[in-house]
Amino acid sequence: MQKINKAGVCAPLGFLASAVNADVKGKGKEKNDMCLIYSETPFKMAGVFTKNTFKAAPVRHAIEALKINKEYQAVLVNSGNANACTGQQGIDACAELTSAVADALDIDHNKVLMSSTGTIGVQLPVERMKKHIDTLVDELDDGNSDLFAEAILTTDTFPKQCGVLVETKNGAYVVAGAAKGAGMIAPNMATMLCYITTDAVVSDKNLQTVLETAVNGSFNSITVDNDMSTNDTVFLMANGMSGIIPNQNELQEAVNLVTLELAKAIVKDGEGATKFITVNVKGADSDDDAKKCAFLIANSPLVKTMFHGEDPNWGRLLACVGASQVKADESQTDLYFEDLLYVKNGLIIDEKMESKAAEIMKQAEISITLDLNMGKGEAKVYTCDLSREYIAINADYRS
Amino acid sequence: MQKINKAGVCAPLGFLASAVNADVKGKGKEKNDMCLIYSETPFKMAGVFTKNTFKAAPVRHAIEALKINKEYQAVLVNSGNANACTGQQGIDACAELTSAVADALDIDHNKVLMSSTGTIGVQLPVERMKKHIDTLVDELDDGNSDLFAEAILTTDTFPKQCGVLVETKNGAYVVAGAAKGAGMIAPNMATMLCYITTDAVVSDKNLQTVLETAVNGSFNSITVDNDMSTNDTVFLMANGMSGIIPNQNELQEAVNLVTLELAKAIVKDGEGATKFITVNVKGADSDDDAKKCAFLIANSPLVKTMFHGEDPNWGRLLACVGASQVKADESQTDLYFEDLLYVKNGLIIDEKMESKAAEIMKQAEISITLDLNMGKGEAKVYTCDLSREYIAINADYRS
Repeated sequence: MQKINKAGVCAPLGFLASAVNADVKGKGKEKNDMCLIYSETPFKMAGVFTKNTFKAAPVRHAIEALKINKEYQAVLVNSGNANACTGQQGIDACAELTSAVADALDIDHNKVLMSSTGTIGVQLPVERMKKHIDTLVDELDDGNSDLFAEAILTTDTFPKQCGVLVETKNGAYVVAGAAKGAGMIAPNMATMLCYITTDAVVSDKNLQTVLETAVNGSFNSITVDNDMSTNDTVFLMANGMSGIIPNQNELQEAVNLVTLELAKAIVKDGEGATKFITVNVKGADSDDDAKKCAFLIANSPLVKTMFHGEDPNWGRLLACVGASQVKADESQTDLYFEDLLYVKNGLIIDEKMESKAAEIMKQAEISITLDLNMGKGEAKVYTCDLSREYIAINADYRS
Repeated sequence: MQKINKAGVCAPLGFLASAVNADVKGKGKEKNDMCLIYSETPFKMAGVFTKNTFKAAPVRHAIEALKINKEYQAVLVNSGNANACTGQQGIDACAELTSAVADALDIDHNKVLMSSTGTIGVQLPVERMKKHIDTLVDELDDGNSDLFAEAILTTDTFPKQCGVLVETKNGAYVVAGAAKGAGMIAPNMATMLCYITTDAVVSDKNLQTVLETAVNGSFNSITVDNDMSTNDTVFLMANGMSGIIPNQNELQEAVNLVTLELAKAIVKDGEGATKFITVNVKGADSDDDAKKCAFLIANSPLVKTMFHGEDPNWGRLLACVGASQVKADESQTDLYFEDLLYVKNGLIIDEKMESKAAEIMKQAEISITLDLNMGKGEAKVYTCDLSREYIAINADYRS
């Protein structure tokens, strides 16, 4: 398995993409904000979606469509407007746009899905968007991965793409993807969109299993601000054009690699983030306990600001373990900063170690480990620090 | 029932207080950081404490003591050091200091409790603190409410006191209190200390019931940053010196009033807070659903920054209702900004109303109401906005 430099959604055989500036926000913005993925032959589709009760119109549309049909040929995406909290009009807008794309591509109406990201509660400018659909179709090209990866962004500061080439004795296939998401990232993938393509030959049932497994270890293990959006969507598309039927484990590994790399990129691009933090909890009574504890630490504003301030205030970390109310005993809890055993049995080993810990805090990427010494449960969660810039971005967003 | 202007812990008969600068942090800070409440006659004591599994030494000490004995005569408090995550040495420090106070007051060792607030994981400077105990005892005075209220503060920007006079046909009694807490405020009262005194005659059993009821509607209904500390403590002390046996409902009402006013003051002093926000959820399937939904809204960084930015971005509020996963249907959810019906059945009534809503967002105190139209469950939660200043305070605290 080999990472392909700068590979995006068009890296697998037969996938084309395009992007336009459809002025979705109606503010004459210069950024491309509508884009399309298309495959020369229909693909099997797997999807994982937000658990928010108030799902956006395109999410509701996709969930219903996938119950009936697993084969598609195109996905339309817009940024700048979430088409969430938009009632029946939002559902109708989604149907109208996917139908318009199908007509322009001359394929069945039920072969197109859609996703949206951006402001909630505003109706999509359907007519304005429809005017650009012919251009989207005309400009489809297998060299447009970058254009696609950029058009899906909102408050992100850089595009996120990753691809791997998997060589088998019968030949090679590719798994590649693009993602967006910077704020509202939390378990269950808040405001996160991800499109993964592959030219491997996979049944729709296997595809769904592989995707769900990959999402649990990646997008469901990251948090920026513990908010859960109405729009989160991860699509995995397999068009079989390589002719290769992959080993299931090998395919899983490839999709895991792509999703984990994209998930980490999202955390690194967390709104206002200056540091990438890995929170490991081990020795918990169960994996669930470990995950609960790790997420409480990763979401704590006091912990996140502590990392921002580069102060190894370990007491805040232990307080979080206690606040998570998982099975733990202060006098048996150990804490590591990277490999440095900093707190043993709930007490700082030596106050002089604070300066070593402070050095570690200056790193751009920091890994901490809490060992609860209770059992074999473990979890790994990725998060970022909380900076003034987060406030600036979110207090001023939309205005 | 009548509010008494500026009344603090010494307002009820027989309660005295004092405060000194014991240099708890060892940095020669000028602020008073150790203080004492003493009653001329023993008082009944009720206590409510943090639910954090890793409780600070003074909290563990108080919980154990209250299991055996409900009668006390003094409470020692220090700020600047939480005496949490300090192991057996922390427990010993607490015992040594309360014994020293008892000796100086010439009362039994088991008549003194203690609480602490400040940095976690540092041992108390017991010897330095003990040197100041005689002064604390010498300076006890019934005019020292303000000194006490100031000495318990950490990152707070103003002292918090409240008192009420309750007139009965047999005479009057007073309920008064002081509190501290600005960061780490969340359900279960994170890093919050509160001392309530009364000269009413109350049995220890009634006192505990009254306190628990009052805390549920006040300190357990506020959130600043969803962190839960190791040290939260609310004490209610009744020395009976007024000779008045209060009506239980009237006493409850008086304690409710004092705790709610102190809880609101804590939110107003939330680290970096510029706005006081009341989140009402009604029409929920149950009170529990309503509280879960209200807290999710009140803790959402996206909602808190939205208030800071004064942008009536109602979609974020509806997204939180969905994220809380309580029983709700987007097409039946209504949202009010103050009395303005802004969103009806999940849709904005009229985009022109955004300017009215934007006017409301400029207020220093804002009340919003989500009506889920599912049942009769309701909850009210108090919170504040999230500003750059919060980051500055917490990234730089301790350094």
